[in-house]
Amino acid sequence: MSVAATLSGEQEKGSALDALIAMVADDLRAVNETIVGRMHSQVSLIPQLAGHIIAAGGKRLRPVLTLASSHLCGYTGKRHVKLAACIEFIHTATLLHDDVVDESDLRRGGPSANAVWGNKPSVLVGDFLFSRSFELMVEDGALPVLAILSHASAVIAEGEVLQLITTNDTETTEEAYLEVVRSKTAQLFAAACRLGPLVAGRPVAEEEAMDSYGLNLGIAFQIVDDVLDYSAKQETLGKVIGDDFREGKITLPVILAYARGNEEERAFWRRTLENQEQTEGDLRHAIALMERHAALTDTIGRARDYGDKARRALSCFPDGPMKSALLDVVTFCIERGY
Amino acid sequence: MSVAATLSGEQEKGSALDALIAMVADDLRAVNETIVGRMHSQVSLIPQLAGHIIAAGGKRLRPVLTLASSHLCGYTGKRHVKLAACIEFIHTATLLHDDVVDESDLRRGGPSANAVWGNKPSVLVGDFLFSRSFELMVEDGALPVLAILSHASAVIAEGEVLQLITTNDTETTEEAYLEVVRSKTAQLFAAACRLGPLVAGRPVAEEEAMDSYGLNLGIAFQIVDDVLDYSAKQETLGKVIGDDFREGKITLPVILAYARGNEEERAFWRRTLENQEQTEGDLRHAIALMERHAALTDTIGRARDYGDKARRALSCFPDGPMKSALLDVVTFCIERGY
Repeated sequence: MSVAATLSGEQEKGSALDALIAMVADDLRAVNETIVGRMHSQVSLIPQLAGHIIAAGGKRLRPVLTLASSHLCGYTGKRHVKLAACIEFIHTATLLHDDVVDESDLRRGGPSANAVWGNKPSVLVGDFLFSRSFELMVEDGALPVLAILSHASAVIAEGEVLQLITTNDTETTEEAYLEVVRSKTAQLFAAACRLGPLVAGRPVAEEEAMDSYGLNLGIAFQIVDDVLDYSAKQETLGKVIGDDFREGKITLPVILAYARGNEEERAFWRRTLENQEQTEGDLRHAIALMERHAALTDTIGRARDYGDKARRALSCFPDGPMKSALLDVVTFCIERGY
Repeated sequence: MSVAATLSGEQEKGSALDALIAMVADDLRAVNETIVGRMHSQVSLIPQLAGHIIAAGGKRLRPVLTLASSHLCGYTGKRHVKLAACIEFIHTATLLHDDVVDESDLRRGGPSANAVWGNKPSVLVGDFLFSRSFELMVEDGALPVLAILSHASAVIAEGEVLQLITTNDTETTEEAYLEVVRSKTAQLFAAACRLGPLVAGRPVAEEEAMDSYGLNLGIAFQIVDDVLDYSAKQETLGKVIGDDFREGKITLPVILAYARGNEEERAFWRRTLENQEQTEGDLRHAIALMERHAALTDTIGRARDYGDKARRALSCFPDGPMKSALLDVVTFCIERGY
């Protein structure tokens, strides 16, 4: 499967995200061309490995947000294309390093890069994409962009380390969990959205509004992702669930179920997540405990609160099709949790 | 051993490098303070782990080169201090990722960060330091600096991947080896040196001259490093040798010994380095073969050629104590090979 073929390939139709993607389709094609062109290196393993993960691709939500926020702010230039590619490069670099850290064999339903090529090139190609992203920003030439993305990158790394520390720790608080989510996921959503008003030369208040939209959307997105890892519906769709459970990651559904559980239940969580002693049926039992305590639905409830904040952040922008699409994407990111 | 204590601690005295360090001692203290201040994070594992590797420290040759080249160019401001810290952060990030890639348990005679904390935080703290370095550059505010260091970082990653590809491949050419050396090591030396004339606002010709000095010094430095890994004298000094041999890294002494060896000798190199089948006495035999074919002394000879280029690159600068010190450092970097 060539990268170019996948990058230009069709998206599934129907969702609010697809509607948003359709509105920026031409720009997104240009972003994909930039990605393919700029992940090139004479060291052929680099585009091979980078192409593998970029082709697996998903829907490019983060660069789409940069494109959409630029349009929302009336931007008519071309800078947003290169900057959206920067966002995707940073995202891809963190995915490559994540998979090494998580020792994942799968990524988006296919084999992960580290499973195919080993950890070593995954670490180094991540570094390459990260550096290349900064080279692209330098070509763009705006220090505020470099400030936003260098800061976001540092915060992402901090969030990943914090997640590592909370792994296997059933005493992890909801606050610590949210700090991880805000740092490792939402910070890049916020940066992606902020670039729109920035390139459009809009007032700082609009930058902050889009930052808030992205931040809260990103938090909601990650919270829902953490629910999906325990979702029976996902399983019926053929998706693998239980990765977080197997790795001992302490996500909000676990935190709520643990807080509401009795001593016997807490002993179960400590055995499975803290001591990593898991046997067949444990994942099923974990899901049953979450359902008993409404941990999954309440977690979705938290995501909804952040979704509301994201929607409210757009109030300063004039109504129109792009704003509607961005509002609908919030709903989509949360409702996929069912 | 606290970082601050080590950073402000005394250097061994006597070598040409010590003389250069003494000439920039006040600035270097300021660099060390910047490093300690800016590796801080609320996630305490980050300064802990970063402090471990930065304290292990070595002589900070790369940031010293930034300071010295700034002085050589008559710079009297303060920007070079922050930029020298950027150089050290990038260097440290690559060391952390190197140790993960090499699966090293030792770094500068002490346990490596990955041996103490595992691979995961080493990858992520490397990412953090790398991002923090770009944040510092943004604070400095000069796009040409960001251009030099983002490009250098991408080239370093390419060099590391290329090294990975040539590992265990006894057919590796001298050209491929030099490409690895130029990318993974010399590029950062070149960038570190180039920053001096850049902050001093000197003509591009001087930037290119310092770049050439750094590049050729860096190549010589790495070539000698590769000799030291087979050096009996190092062993008598209590240093561990043979790391490259055990990892199957194809360095210039191996390339020369292989090219000059008979069929039986080549079979030995293929067994030990390509098939990684090593038994006791193999390292000793490898060194004996290198000595038989003058591979080590000829490798030092190559390093001397690059050293000569480095010295010649300084010809456009006026004579003086700083130029003398930079010339002497070239000799020092090569002569430590004995």
